[in-house]
Amino acid sequence: MTGFRFLTAGESHGPALTVIVEGVPGGLPLGEAQIARDLARRQGGYGRGRRQQIERDFARITGGVRHGTTIGSPIALWIENADHQNANWRVRMSVDPVAEEMERITLLRPGHADLPGTQKYGYADVRPILERSSARETAARVAAGAVARALVGAVGITIHSHTVSIGHVEAEPPAGAIDWEAVEASPVRVADPQAEPRMVAAIDAAKDALDSLGGIFEVRASGVPIGLGSHVQWDRRLDAQIAQAFVSINAVKGVEIGDAFANARRRGSQAQDAILPVSQWPRGERWARGSNHAGGLEGGMSNGQEIVVRGALKPLSTIPSRMPSADLLTGEAAPSFYERSDACVVPAAGVIGEAMLALVLARAVLEKFGGDHIDELRRNCAAYQATVGPREPRP
Amino acid sequence: MTGFRFLTAGESHGPALTVIVEGVPGGLPLGEAQIARDLARRQGGYGRGRRQQIERDFARITGGVRHGTTIGSPIALWIENADHQNANWRVRMSVDPVAEEMERITLLRPGHADLPGTQKYGYADVRPILERSSARETAARVAAGAVARALVGAVGITIHSHTVSIGHVEAEPPAGAIDWEAVEASPVRVADPQAEPRMVAAIDAAKDALDSLGGIFEVRASGVPIGLGSHVQWDRRLDAQIAQAFVSINAVKGVEIGDAFANARRRGSQAQDAILPVSQWPRGERWARGSNHAGGLEGGMSNGQEIVVRGALKPLSTIPSRMPSADLLTGEAAPSFYERSDACVVPAAGVIGEAMLALVLARAVLEKFGGDHIDELRRNCAAYQATVGPREPRP
Amino acid sequence: MTGFRFLTAGESHGPALTVIVEGVPGGLPLGEAQIARDLARRQGGYGRGRRQQIERDFARITGGVRHGTTIGSPIALWIENADHQNANWRVRMSVDPVAEEMERITLLRPGHADLPGTQKYGYADVRPILERSSARETAARVAAGAVARALVGAVGITIHSHTVSIGHVEAEPPAGAIDWEAVEASPVRVADPQAEPRMVAAIDAAKDALDSLGGIFEVRASGVPIGLGSHVQWDRRLDAQIAQAFVSINAVKGVEIGDAFANARRRGSQAQDAILPVSQWPRGERWARGSNHAGGLEGGMSNGQEIVVRGALKPLSTIPSRMPSADLLTGEAAPSFYERSDACVVPAAGVIGEAMLALVLARAVLEKFGGDHIDELRRNCAAYQATVGPREPRP
Amino acid sequence: MTGFRFLTAGESHGPALTVIVEGVPGGLPLGEAQIARDLARRQGGYGRGRRQQIERDFARITGGVRHGTTIGSPIALWIENADHQNANWRVRMSVDPVAEEMERITLLRPGHADLPGTQKYGYADVRPILERSSARETAARVAAGAVARALVGAVGITIHSHTVSIGHVEAEPPAGAIDWEAVEASPVRVADPQAEPRMVAAIDAAKDALDSLGGIFEVRASGVPIGLGSHVQWDRRLDAQIAQAFVSINAVKGVEIGDAFANARRRGSQAQDAILPVSQWPRGERWARGSNHAGGLEGGMSNGQEIVVRGALKPLSTIPSRMPSADLLTGEAAPSFYERSDACVVPAAGVIGEAMLALVLARAVLEKFGGDHIDELRRNCAAYQATVGPREPRP
Repeated sequence: MTGFRFLTAGESHGPALTVIVEGVPGGLPLGEAQIARDLARRQGGYGRGRRQQIERDFARITGGVRHGTTIGSPIALWIENADHQNANWRVRMSVDPVAEEMERITLLRPGHADLPGTQKYGYADVRPILERSSARETAARVAAGAVARALVGAVGITIHSHTVSIGHVEAEPPAGAIDWEAVEASPVRVADPQAEPRMVAAIDAAKDALDSLGGIFEVRASGVPIGLGSHVQWDRRLDAQIAQAFVSINAVKGVEIGDAFANARRRGSQAQDAILPVSQWPRGERWARGSNHAGGLEGGMSNGQEIVVRGALKPLSTIPSRMPSADLLTGEAAPSFYERSDACVVPAAGVIGEAMLALVLARAVLEKFGGDHIDELRRNCAAYQATVGPREPRP
Repeated sequence: MTGFRFLTAGESHGPALTVIVEGVPGGLPLGEAQIARDLARRQGGYGRGRRQQIERDFARITGGVRHGTTIGSPIALWIENADHQNANWRVRMSVDPVAEEMERITLLRPGHADLPGTQKYGYADVRPILERSSARETAARVAAGAVARALVGAVGITIHSHTVSIGHVEAEPPAGAIDWEAVEASPVRVADPQAEPRMVAAIDAAKDALDSLGGIFEVRASGVPIGLGSHVQWDRRLDAQIAQAFVSINAVKGVEIGDAFANARRRGSQAQDAILPVSQWPRGERWARGSNHAGGLEGGMSNGQEIVVRGALKPLSTIPSRMPSADLLTGEAAPSFYERSDACVVPAAGVIGEAMLALVLARAVLEKFGGDHIDELRRNCAAYQATVGPREPRP
Repeated sequence: MTGFRFLTAGESHGPALTVIVEGVPGGLPLGEAQIARDLARRQGGYGRGRRQQIERDFARITGGVRHGTTIGSPIALWIENADHQNANWRVRMSVDPVAEEMERITLLRPGHADLPGTQKYGYADVRPILERSSARETAARVAAGAVARALVGAVGITIHSHTVSIGHVEAEPPAGAIDWEAVEASPVRVADPQAEPRMVAAIDAAKDALDSLGGIFEVRASGVPIGLGSHVQWDRRLDAQIAQAFVSINAVKGVEIGDAFANARRRGSQAQDAILPVSQWPRGERWARGSNHAGGLEGGMSNGQEIVVRGALKPLSTIPSRMPSADLLTGEAAPSFYERSDACVVPAAGVIGEAMLALVLARAVLEKFGGDHIDELRRNCAAYQATVGPREPRP
Repeated sequence: MTGFRFLTAGESHGPALTVIVEGVPGGLPLGEAQIARDLARRQGGYGRGRRQQIERDFARITGGVRHGTTIGSPIALWIENADHQNANWRVRMSVDPVAEEMERITLLRPGHADLPGTQKYGYADVRPILERSSARETAARVAAGAVARALVGAVGITIHSHTVSIGHVEAEPPAGAIDWEAVEASPVRVADPQAEPRMVAAIDAAKDALDSLGGIFEVRASGVPIGLGSHVQWDRRLDAQIAQAFVSINAVKGVEIGDAFANARRRGSQAQDAILPVSQWPRGERWARGSNHAGGLEGGMSNGQEIVVRGALKPLSTIPSRMPSADLLTGEAAPSFYERSDACVVPAAGVIGEAMLALVLARAVLEKFGGDHIDELRRNCAAYQATVGPREPRP
C-alpha cells in the first residue's frame, strides 16, 4: 500500500505539472539544480521541435526539502508550463468556465490516446484527452526520477543511457565501458561516433519528408546491490517492474532486459553468463561473471551485474504530413490533427528511461533495506553488502 | 489497495501450490474442469521433460464457488504436487524439522535465482530458493488465469496464443485469422504447418546436444472493449501492466506490444493504423482500422482492436550439459547443478502468457465497469459499449 | 494498486501544500470556490488561534479541471502558505542551504510527533518533524475532500458534521433530523443551542488557564447506496476504512461507528436495527429500519441508512503553559516547546472528518460502480439502485 | 503495492479456510504448533456455542516453511472445516452443481451482512453471503496473526489481550503489569478476579434470556521500537492502520488508542504523558514517560511505550430469540434467521485483536527495517535501536 510511490498531475498547456514523491528518507542532499540538469537533458537531442527551444523546464521544490536536504516528508515539485502564459492557452485551458465558444478538436490521430481516450472518458473533443496524454507529462517523471536518482546514488547506483538505433541506423557501441560524457555531448546521445552523422541525416530526411522516426534506447544501472526484487511473488520481480516502467513511457511499446530477443534465438549453453571462480574476480568484486546476457537480472532479482534495459520507441504519431483518419463526431474521413511535434525523440527517451529505472530501483532499495534517514539506509545496505560472497553455512 | 488481485504460494516439491484470487464478482459460472483444461495445456508441448508426463495438475476449488458459480468471495485453489508423495521429497521439503542430515545444493546455476536469491535471503543452500523460483509456480498462475479468463469471457473477451519462433526457426503465421484449433493440435502450438516439423527438429537437436531452446510466443485477446487502462497516470497504462505481467513469467525477459521493435525502425507514416471512415466499417464494428501495428493499445488504453503481445523466452538455464559455474560456499569453480528440466517450454509459455493477459484484463475490466454480480458487470459494460462510436457533443 | 487515491505534500511554514487526487472521472463540475468553502469552514470555530485569522486558505486548481469540469486527469491543488512570505520563515524553511546558523528546536512536546519522529528520522532538531506533522496538513485533506464530496454528491451522497462534546460539555442533538444550517452558524458547530454557550465558556476557561480542550465530533453521510464496501476481505470493509481515515486525522485517537461503545454494553436484542416490513417503508425508501444503532454499516458494507461516525479528539498538546518534558539533545528536564496553537479545534475537526469520509466513500463508489465520465458512474449507480429491494430469485 | 500482505479465503461450511501471508523474511522459526496454540485460544472463552467444542482448528502449513523455518516464500495455511465432512454441508456448500433443490435462506438478520450483501452481490438467498461474512473467517486471521506474531517477536515485540468489559460488567485491571498467565487461565480472559464471576453470571443471564452480550477488549504490545509508522502521509499513520485492523474484525465497530475517549474530556495539561528527564529513566529504557494516555502512539508513530488498543464489540446479532425482521424475497415481516451462535465472544475477540495488531506491526517493522532473512531484520533493527536516545546533532 505504502512505501516509495509517486504521482504526477498536470496538462500539457495547463498552468503547471505537479509531482509528489512519497517515501524518500530524510537527510538526502537534494536541490533544484540537480533536477534542472535532468530536465534540460530531456529537452535536448537533435530532432526536437520548437517548444523545447522556447521553454526551459524548471522544477521548483515546494515540499520535503529544507536547507538542501530531504526531511522524510513527501517531496513536491512544481514545473510551470511557459506556454500557459500565452493568452490563447489561458482561455483554452482555463480552469474556470469561459465565455468564448471553444473550438473542439475532432480529427483523431491514430497512434495516440485520442480515440480510446474520448470513447472511454465520454468526450466529443480530443482536447481534454491529448492535454494529459501528451509526452509533456514525461517532464514530471524526469523530475521525480531525479529525486530517485539521488536516492539510489546514496547506495552507489549510477544510471546512464544511450541511443541504440534511430530508424534504420544502428549504433555499434563499444564492447567495454561507454564514455558517458561523449554520449551527453552527442546531439543524438549515441556512443558510436560513426553512427552519429548517419542518425542526424536520417532525422533530417524524415523531417524533410514531413515524417518522424523512432528507435531504440538503452539504459544502464551500475553499482546495483545483488538481491533487489524477489522471485517469490509475480509482482515483486524487479525485471517485470522495470518492464512496466519502460512501457509506461509514451510511445515505448517494447522492452528487453539484456539480450532478451537475441537470447530467444540462442541455445541455453550460449545464453548464460558463467559465474567465474573466485580466483578470477576483479578486486573488490564478488560473484563476477564472464558475460552479461541477462542484463543484470536473474530470477526477478538484480545479480550485481550492470542492469541493461532497452526500450523500443515507435516514431511519433503526430506528423506534419497529416494522415488519413476519421472525425470523432461523424466517423467521416478526415486528415489527422497536427499541432506541433518533434521529428525524433529517441535521445530524450533515454533520459526518461533513466528516470523510470531510477524510480523502480528506489522502491526496490527501500523495500530491501528500509531506513528513514539516508544514513540508516546506507548502514543497512553496507551491513548487507558485507554478507555477500561465498559463505559457510549458517549454524 | 484493493480491487482484483491474486497471490500464489507453494514450493515446487512442497505439498501443494495455493492460489487466492480476490475481487471476482458473484454469479460467474466456474468449475474445476475449466481450470484443469488450461493446466493440461500448460503441461503439454513438444520438448517437455519427464515431470510433465508423470503429473497431471488438478486445481481443487476450496473457496469462493458454490454450486457451479462464484459467490463474490475470494476464490481459493489448491494444486497438489504429486512429487511430494515421494518419501524423499517428504523429508527434503518437510515443514517440520527432520532428523536426517540434509544434503545442500551449492552448485550455482547461472540464469536462475540461485545466486541472487541465496545472497538476498542469506542462505548457504540453493534449495530454499530454487523450490520457489521454479517454473512450477506458473501452474498456480495458469489456474488463477483460468478464473480471470472466465471473468473476461463474460464481457466477450477471448484469449489465445501461438508460438512465433523456437530458436532460429520462425513461423510465418497467416496474415488473417489464426486457426486456434490447429494451434492447439500442434505439438509446438504453431500456426504455421511448415514451421512445425522444423521446430520439432530443432528441439530434438538441442536435446541431443544436452542443450535447451528458447523462443517467442504471442498472445492475442479479441473482443476487448475500447478504453481499458488509462493514459492519466503511469501505473494505469494497460500496455505497461501487460509488460509487467509478461516479464514476470519465468525466463521471459523481453516483451513487445504489436510491432514494437519493427516500428522502432519505421517512419511515423508507416507505423500507424489509419482509422477508417464509417463507410468502411464492417457490420457491427466501430472505429475500424486498416492495420494493427499498435497491437490493440494506444495511449495506454485498449483501442478495440485485437491485443497482440509477444514474449521473448530465453532457453532454460538448467541444462544437462552442466555449465562452468562456481560453488556457493567457496566460490571455487564447479559445474552447475542439474535436477531435471525441459528442453523447450515455448509452447507452454504461450499458455502462461494467456493467463497473465487474462489476469491483467480482468483487473482492467473491473476497474472500468465495477459490478459485484456478473450481471451487473455485463450491464455496465453493455451500457458503455452502446456509447462507443461517432458522437455528437454532450450538451 | 490504482483506483481512487490521493497524496498530500508540504510543510506548515514551507511555500505551499500540494495535493494530487487521482482517479476522478471526467465531467464532474468542480471549481475553486467549492473547495474554498470547505477550507474556510475548516479555519473557523471558536477557540482557534491567530493564524486562522491571518490566513485565508485558497486552493488553486492546477491540473485535472478545464472550463469548470474535471477531465479524468489527476487533480492538482496548490495551497500557498501565507506565512511563508514572512522573511523569517523563508530562511527557516528555505529549500536551499542558508548561510545563517539555524536555531534548533530541542524541547520535546509530549503528545506530538516530536519524540518518535526525531528518533525515527534521525534528527537532532524537531523542526523537520513538526513542520510536516502539524495539523496544517489537514488543509490539504479538506481540499482533497472537497473534490471527493463533489464526486459522491453526483450519486446523491451528502455529508455533514457537528460537535458532540467539548471537554465535559456534551451536546444533546435532536433525535430527528439535524438543522445543518444552524450548525454552520454556531461558533462551535453544535446542534444543541443549549450546549453552545457552555461550550464557549469551557473553551474560554481552558484558554484562560493556558490550557486546551478536546472533544468528540460526529460526521454523517446521507444518501449512501446500499452495498458499498465488502465483507469478503478484511481490507475491503468500509467501516474499517472509515476508522483508518478518522484516526489518521491529527489528534483523533478513537472512533466509533454508530453506537459502538454503547452497544458494547447492550444485549443483542437491544443493539439491533429491526428491518421493517415493506408496508412500513416511507415512500421512496427500501429496506427501512426502526433505528440506526449500526451507524449505517453492517458486515463491512453500507446498509442504506445514514452513516454515522464519531471521532474522539484529544486536547491539543501544544499548550501555552509549557509542560515538564525533556531536551532532545541531552535528555535533561526542560519545559516543552510552544509555538502558537489553538485552544480548541473540535469544530474544525468535524470538517476534516467530513473530508476523510468523503474520500473513503469516493473510493468505495468508484470501486462498486466504475465509470470514467460522471454520467457513466451515475448510469451504473442508477441501474444498480433499481435492483435494490425485495427480489424474486434469479433464474 | 507489495510489502507484507495477506489474503484469506474460504466459507464457513466450505471445505477449508485458506491463508497466504506474503513478505515474511526467511530464517524465522515457525511451526504448526505455534499457530495451533493461537487457534485454540480463539476457540475458548466462556459463552461459546457448540461448534467451538466440536471442532479443533488446525492450520496446516503448505508453503513457505521448510524444516521448521521460513524460507522467504509466501506462507500458505490450510484450515480444514470439520463441519464440511457432514453430508448435508457437502451438498449445501458443494463447489459443483447439485441435483437437489436447495433451500434458500431469506429471513434477514439485522446486524449482519445479510441485507447489504444480498443487495450488493445480487442474490435472492442469504447463504452465499453469510458463509463468507461469518466470524469463522477470523480463524484464518488468527492463523495469519500467529505468523506475524513470530515475526515481530524476533525483534522483541510481545502481544497480549484481556477483557475490559462484558455487557455492563467492567473489569478493573491492575494499574501496573498484568498477569497474562492468569488472564489465559480465566474463562472470560479477564485480569480482574473480582469481575470474573460477575462476567460469567452476565453471560449466563443473557444466554437464559436467549440473548447475547458484547463488550470491550484490550490488546497490548510491549517491546515495540520507537518510530514505527509515520506522520508524513495519512495512510502511513500506524494508529490509523491499527484502527482499520480492529474495526475490520467482525462485530467490532469502535476502537480507541490509549485513553482516546477519556482524553476527549480532559484538558491538554491532563492528557499528556510527560517525558521524564534522563535521570529518572529505568535502567535500559530511553525516553521514559510518566504515564501512557497516548497508548504508545504519537504523531502516527510508536513512541516506545506499550501500545494499548481497545475494541468495542457489539453483542452478536444472531440470537435464539429471533428478532422481528423482513423476508428478502417479499419484504414482508418475518422473524430473523437463526443458525447456531455464541452468547458472548468478547474473550475470543481479544485473541483476534492480537492477531490483527501483530499483522499491522509486522508490516510496519518490515517497512522500517527491511531485511529478507530474519537475521538481517534483527541486525537493522538493533543498529537503529542503538541510535535511539538523546543525541548530539549530526554534523
